Amino acid sequence: MSQLPRFWNLGWSSFLDWWSNSPVVSEQESSPLYGQQQLNETFLDHGEGQQFLTKAFQVILEEVLCKGTDVKEKVCDWREPEDLAALLDLELRENGESQHQLLKRVQDVAKYSVKTNHPRFFNQLFAGVDYHALAGRFLTEALNTSQYTYEVAPVFVLMEEEVLSKLRSLVGWTHGDGIFCPGGTVSNMYAMNLARFRAFPEVKVKGQWALPRLAVFASQEVCHYSVMKAAAFQGIGTENVFKVNVDDRGCMNPEDLCEKIELAKSQGAVPFFVHATSGTTVKGAFDPLESIADICERLGLWMHVDAAWGGSVLLSNEHRHLMKGVERADSVTWNPHKMMLTGLQCSAILLKDTTDLLKHCHCADATYLFQQDKFYDKSLDTGDKSIQCGRKVDCLKLWLMWKAVGSKGLEGRVDRAFAHVRYLVEEMKRREGFQLIWEPEFVNVCFWFIPPSLRGDENSPDYQDRLSKVAPTIKERMMKQGTMMVGYQPHGGRVNFFRMIVISPQVSHEDMTFFLDEIERLGKDL
Amino acid sequence: MSQLPRFWNLGWSSFLDWWSNSPVVSEQESSPLYGQQQLNETFLDHGEGQQFLTKAFQVILEEVLCKGTDVKEKVCDWREPEDLAALLDLELRENGESQHQLLKRVQDVAKYSVKTNHPRFFNQLFAGVDYHALAGRFLTEALNTSQYTYEVAPVFVLMEEEVLSKLRSLVGWTHGDGIFCPGGTVSNMYAMNLARFRAFPEVKVKGQWALPRLAVFASQEVCHYSVMKAAAFQGIGTENVFKVNVDDRGCMNPEDLCEKIELAKSQGAVPFFVHATSGTTVKGAFDPLESIADICERLGLWMHVDAAWGGSVLLSNEHRHLMKGVERADSVTWNPHKMMLTGLQCSAILLKDTTDLLKHCHCADATYLFQQDKFYDKSLDTGDKSIQCGRKVDCLKLWLMWKAVGSKGLEGRVDRAFAHVRYLVEEMKRREGFQLIWEPEFVNVCFWFIPPSLRGDENSPDYQDRLSKVAPTIKERMMKQGTMMVGYQPHGGRVNFFRMIVISPQVSHEDMTFFLDEIERLGKDL
Repeated sequence: MSQLPRFWNLGWSSFLDWWSNSPVVSEQESSPLYGQQQLNETFLDHGEGQQFLTKAFQVILEEVLCKGTDVKEKVCDWREPEDLAALLDLELRENGESQHQLLKRVQDVAKYSVKTNHPRFFNQLFAGVDYHALAGRFLTEALNTSQYTYEVAPVFVLMEEEVLSKLRSLVGWTHGDGIFCPGGTVSNMYAMNLARFRAFPEVKVKGQWALPRLAVFASQEVCHYSVMKAAAFQGIGTENVFKVNVDDRGCMNPEDLCEKIELAKSQGAVPFFVHATSGTTVKGAFDPLESIADICERLGLWMHVDAAWGGSVLLSNEHRHLMKGVERADSVTWNPHKMMLTGLQCSAILLKDTTDLLKHCHCADATYLFQQDKFYDKSLDTGDKSIQCGRKVDCLKLWLMWKAVGSKGLEGRVDRAFAHVRYLVEEMKRREGFQLIWEPEFVNVCFWFIPPSLRGDENSPDYQDRLSKVAPTIKERMMKQGTMMVGYQPHGGRVNFFRMIVISPQVSHEDMTFFLDEIERLGKDL
Repeated sequence: MSQLPRFWNLGWSSFLDWWSNSPVVSEQESSPLYGQQQLNETFLDHGEGQQFLTKAFQVILEEVLCKGTDVKEKVCDWREPEDLAALLDLELRENGESQHQLLKRVQDVAKYSVKTNHPRFFNQLFAGVDYHALAGRFLTEALNTSQYTYEVAPVFVLMEEEVLSKLRSLVGWTHGDGIFCPGGTVSNMYAMNLARFRAFPEVKVKGQWALPRLAVFASQEVCHYSVMKAAAFQGIGTENVFKVNVDDRGCMNPEDLCEKIELAKSQGAVPFFVHATSGTTVKGAFDPLESIADICERLGLWMHVDAAWGGSVLLSNEHRHLMKGVERADSVTWNPHKMMLTGLQCSAILLKDTTDLLKHCHCADATYLFQQDKFYDKSLDTGDKSIQCGRKVDCLKLWLMWKAVGSKGLEGRVDRAFAHVRYLVEEMKRREGFQLIWEPEFVNVCFWFIPPSLRGDENSPDYQDRLSKVAPTIKERMMKQGTMMVGYQPHGGRVNFFRMIVISPQVSHEDMTFFLDEIERLGKDL
């Protein structure tokens, strides 16, 4: 506090009012030209800062975690972009604001954000809150270090290896390598880069320019996003991703994989990488890993399994059969921030390799970062494994959650999600108007809602066109009323349908019933 | 709590003891086969979870923020890896643990982690804590959403654009584009990929294979890490990064840039990308941007400025001249998680482009993710700009801090760091044994400490060899005593020297004096 309030004699409540409206830190009042004395003073008032943080924590607890998980409260408080921008007063200005005003901002950000922890948020491949993971995330943020050396991240360097080793053991590997990446697409990019490096070690120095045309294979179900982004970014080219046909359930057809490999060869391209998927984004389909492994082994191709979404079935004795054969892969992507509830970001690339391929492929020999004459075992430093320099700590949240609930607790969550899906599917079959698109293999439930006016009209020429408008309309209504959130999309020639995702351990049958009732309510006049 | 304690009749304190040692959530006791009734129950006890989180918050406040910023406490509590692993009991097991045990784990993680918020942590290009940024980070973690659509991140989609626009305005651009990336290396990779795409749009579809050999230019000061990692990862090849000579201060020599461009052409390579640096990692050198811009404009090359470290000088009227000419660049990397104290990760790639190059280069046309018939303006969705799918929210911490201290407050911090450096340099010149390697242009202070036994021995044949061992020994001692942390490295033919980084607004002259005294104390017998 730099000045006494002029109204100090107006009494205690006026003083408090002044205080709570005074700037939290007074640094913006400092002169930019520092004298000796100013530099001797402590610039930052830890007490004030910690008081602000404590109050902000209380707001977070109240708004995000209490209200934000209460079914009586909205999932989202929809505003048009221009209205929201005005409400938030986003502009960044010359001067700072009062403690009071800043807390109001914390509250506003919470109020107008989507409550992804809410039991009726079914919109993405993440949902729900785990309080131990969240405690781990707060601790990560407060400790603020980078994962690259044992020197600045001793706990996290050891912890990352322990967590990766546990994930690898669930894949079926007693040895191997791996690293946490900022998201599944980057993890997949690591796999593609490692595969290219194994096949053509000269690529690191000479570049793709010195290589023949390469060929990548992935099912047509997943040739929309991650694989294409990786192929473009890494200089392989999207047309060199060959789309393999799928069966009705969305699973890769191994015979067609063989045919596409022959096709690529006939065009002069060199196959090197097969991108299989365990848990596709829309259908939740699992590619047949054993058959794909047979092909990859026979032809010497790198087999990658993108299990960013589906990997969590490995936690369940009942459901891990969906990934039978995964131990034959060369690499696996697994995002605990999806079904395991660790929170974004938490994605691991797991490798069977024991030859230090990760380090050979990504090291830059930066002696100024990773000194060779350290007084501890420098093989602990992970910096040379990463394509990044600074790397966020992503292991603690997963580790602390695992310590809290154990492998059995995690297994219970996966099994519970499957059980909810079975219940939901049975209910849908009992109700008029819900048309499942396929029997779910995983926790993605894809369906059309056929509103009363469309029922029995399947053969009318504009049926598909009218049906395609149902999901967007219901979605708009649910968003504007804030009652729940679920996604929709057109896919594989089918017009817009809903994709309901069941992840969160905090949902109950009541939420499933609410979901169906609410779809009916929002669509009954369509 | 699933069972009454058998010792309930032993009194209240026994009960409390039992309670605090019982599992926080009892999910691991659930049967994996769910009956109807179990699925009707709420799985997660929010009250218990929030209680744990509150207690964890208190531990964080105490251990990380109070003790962790107290000069009377250690910066690090050094343990040998095997001892630390044993202390932490890292193994992940079948069953969960008690609330009491988990809080102990939070405490242990805090205790054995390096205190990067400590006023005597001078080891990296990040240090110190900003409580508003930290509140923003906690809020980000609690809200747990992905930055890809307005639908799930309405506040953050608008906020990211506002923050990027503010950063662009400091670069000198009224229009442009940009995105937050997981770290400076990824931001630099975006720049290289965009430059390649602008020069050869066919690369996205056909790959590098269809292109001529490309050539990248960067100063020899920075050809160790980020540029090389990008060139390797993106299929360009490390040998196609041409190393441009630098002057004594470590700044790129523009004449040599021209020569290296001619050299590349003479080898049949096609120049497309010049990677300039504002604030190199070791020396803190600023490349001459005006001269580099002249060359890039004349030859039609993409000019990128890696200002991950140095970008913050743009906040200061007194020091922004160091980046004179930056507005002529095509792209700029700026990491607010470094000098601006937002905490990891916070890195922006800023673009002058107004033709939607970012979207054209990275879009994957995934209609299932980014529906075309949304009820709001889908141009708000950022997913097609990113190489990622899910993307962590990195803008809130920076926004909230800026709201708290204002542009003037941020300017004051930068000016203060420079003022501390001037003081430190003057003190070093006054003391025997401190030998500055060059006059700092920025806040990197590079020096040798010449211990008493070496003084005056400069001409002895083993001087360099003996000098090279001084910094590692002093470093080991300071780590093991935990009094402070500062980095060292060999660089450009010079044997190991210290690199002191002054960032944190919470340091005072007392800390600077302590630093010098401590180096003397730790090295006096060498």
